[in-house]
Amino acid sequence: MGERITAIYRVKDRAENIQARAHTIAVEQSVEMPVSAITKQSVLDEIVGEVQAIRDLGGGVFEIAIGLAVSTTGLEAGQTLNMLFGNSSIHADMVLHDAIFPAEVRRAFAGPHHGLEGLRKRVGAEGRALTCSALKPQGLSPPELAALAAQFARGGIDYIKDDHGLADQAYSPFAERVPAVAEAVRAAQGNVPTRYLPSLSGNLDQLRRQIEVVRGAGLDTVLIAPMIVGLPSFHALVRENPDIAFMAHPAMAGAARIAPPFLLGKLFRLLGADATVFPNHGGRFGYTTDECRALAGAALEPWGDIKPCIPVPAGGMTTDRMPEMLDFYGSDVMLLIGGGLLAAGERLADETKAFVEAVHAHGEG
Amino acid sequence: MGERITAIYRVKDRAENIQARAHTIAVEQSVEMPVSAITKQSVLDEIVGEVQAIRDLGGGVFEIAIGLAVSTTGLEAGQTLNMLFGNSSIHADMVLHDAIFPAEVRRAFAGPHHGLEGLRKRVGAEGRALTCSALKPQGLSPPELAALAAQFARGGIDYIKDDHGLADQAYSPFAERVPAVAEAVRAAQGNVPTRYLPSLSGNLDQLRRQIEVVRGAGLDTVLIAPMIVGLPSFHALVRENPDIAFMAHPAMAGAARIAPPFLLGKLFRLLGADATVFPNHGGRFGYTTDECRALAGAALEPWGDIKPCIPVPAGGMTTDRMPEMLDFYGSDVMLLIGGGLLAAGERLADETKAFVEAVHAHGEG
Repeated sequence: MGERITAIYRVKDRAENIQARAHTIAVEQSVEMPVSAITKQSVLDEIVGEVQAIRDLGGGVFEIAIGLAVSTTGLEAGQTLNMLFGNSSIHADMVLHDAIFPAEVRRAFAGPHHGLEGLRKRVGAEGRALTCSALKPQGLSPPELAALAAQFARGGIDYIKDDHGLADQAYSPFAERVPAVAEAVRAAQGNVPTRYLPSLSGNLDQLRRQIEVVRGAGLDTVLIAPMIVGLPSFHALVRENPDIAFMAHPAMAGAARIAPPFLLGKLFRLLGADATVFPNHGGRFGYTTDECRALAGAALEPWGDIKPCIPVPAGGMTTDRMPEMLDFYGSDVMLLIGGGLLAAGERLADETKAFVEAVHAHGEG
Repeated sequence: MGERITAIYRVKDRAENIQARAHTIAVEQSVEMPVSAITKQSVLDEIVGEVQAIRDLGGGVFEIAIGLAVSTTGLEAGQTLNMLFGNSSIHADMVLHDAIFPAEVRRAFAGPHHGLEGLRKRVGAEGRALTCSALKPQGLSPPELAALAAQFARGGIDYIKDDHGLADQAYSPFAERVPAVAEAVRAAQGNVPTRYLPSLSGNLDQLRRQIEVVRGAGLDTVLIAPMIVGLPSFHALVRENPDIAFMAHPAMAGAARIAPPFLLGKLFRLLGADATVFPNHGGRFGYTTDECRALAGAALEPWGDIKPCIPVPAGGMTTDRMPEMLDFYGSDVMLLIGGGLLAAGERLADETKAFVEAVHAHGEG
């Protein structure tokens, strides 16, 4: 008998249907055909999904745990998502809430190369929360983005990421933007060895060429949106570039009906995200306090040999929220303010400095 | 001024908020920062999203049309999805309903190489609906799957696809399965030159190796799940393999809060799907009659130089539904029955023949 992943779904259905519904999900996410027509015993024993538990959460919502054979995933990232939620994603009344992976799966996907401690080390931080901002708007030229980045670096910020909308566009080609910004950051930085994270996009060939540009510019950290490039490309890129740290962006992840703590916290971490950006509660997006707490927990909690992934709450944050956010998340966090700093215009370096000082001071308070 | 894509969202909000909400979406899907902090005139004129129309659909739902600059997409598949819905996908109260692409975008992505007529030609069909079934369950060995495929071919079916759960697993390695099934189909087929579609999975390197196995086995048609492998990989594979026809599978597409007619009909077609599988109304999944009609319409309607993509309604279909489905979809359709045929067990070839004859007879009736 091979090992099984336990996939945990939350389903809206009537109590009298729930046994049958659980069985239907177990079939849909494994053999996807009438079980009565399966004659091979090993398929019935080892491949058909098995209902492990059903729990009534109240309010017409049930939690259903299904054991899915690890062998069906081929230990490949896309196929794993396919087995967890491929067809069932089409049902509007169910979400993929969580999954418990056996050690074999953890070993195969292997998680981040650097994680929380690696990202702290890159900027010489010890035990404190990290700071981050974003280069935007798109439409600026490489020198204009470089000038903004220099202001952030002058303000002493730890990480500067490209806006996830910056890709390889005519007004700011990747191969021109990345060295220009990298050079400006190096020239402007003071005590903090500020890191610039270019945003990667495209297919695996394009991603690999971009990684070469990144390395050529002396950089070692990047931004990527796993649900845009596809989990198979994301995982391949992580594994073949152990010197590079990857910050994951949630674009298109929110559209999937997969619980954010599982997708952005656990699954992105499993596939190798060193940091995971997500919309903080009380910002432009609708994640709740509980979801944010669970997401940070999933990213950080001890998990076999898998390194912790640093949570990066974002999405409309401002400097005056820093004390509250640090109380909420503690110091194992990277705080990201994008537009809230850029709105300062000519006072950008000063505003950045105020943000950085608010974060550093909290750790010492 | 560059051209713009018109992205059409449906949003639940209060009437008094809707102007501001539309503006917020236009900013979120373009520059993603306070517009007041943007000083460069060309960004304000050419990059910031523009609200083109707001329409009250009743019931607290509004349709919002936003013009997004084509230049922001870099004419790359993933980045196009990112610009259309990346961050906004995180809002539970809005869906991406549709998008209108200027000719520049259509030319860049170029659509299917074969489409409806190409898939008819491959099996020598003229003007009639096509038939399809699926090889499953996973867990069978290559010879066992090959034996099933032979029964389908004996029944005179047009297309046999791998179950989308078949990937590259230890119990059925891709490189063993594909030639075994291809050979069995060739040996068993009668008048209809039945085509076998292996299911591709993995990253772009793996996909390319699989395409070589496919070609080496004398095959020219494949199954792929664009939302699992990622749109950038899907589009790259289509463009570099003009001899291969691609059937798109909706796994994980249903989870995105993107209207199925747009995603599975229009966008998959734009990126090169020759056929698009979707859950028919009245089957195991919840698509409505109207959604199915709109999806088939989006896949088939005249669209510049973009070839029509054949709709493949599926998901729990049975032979007795064929007359009704043919009345509904007409003959520009591929009808897919998977489990409904496999349930026949030893009578599989006969059941397949009955299915095929029901479809052919309808065309002549």
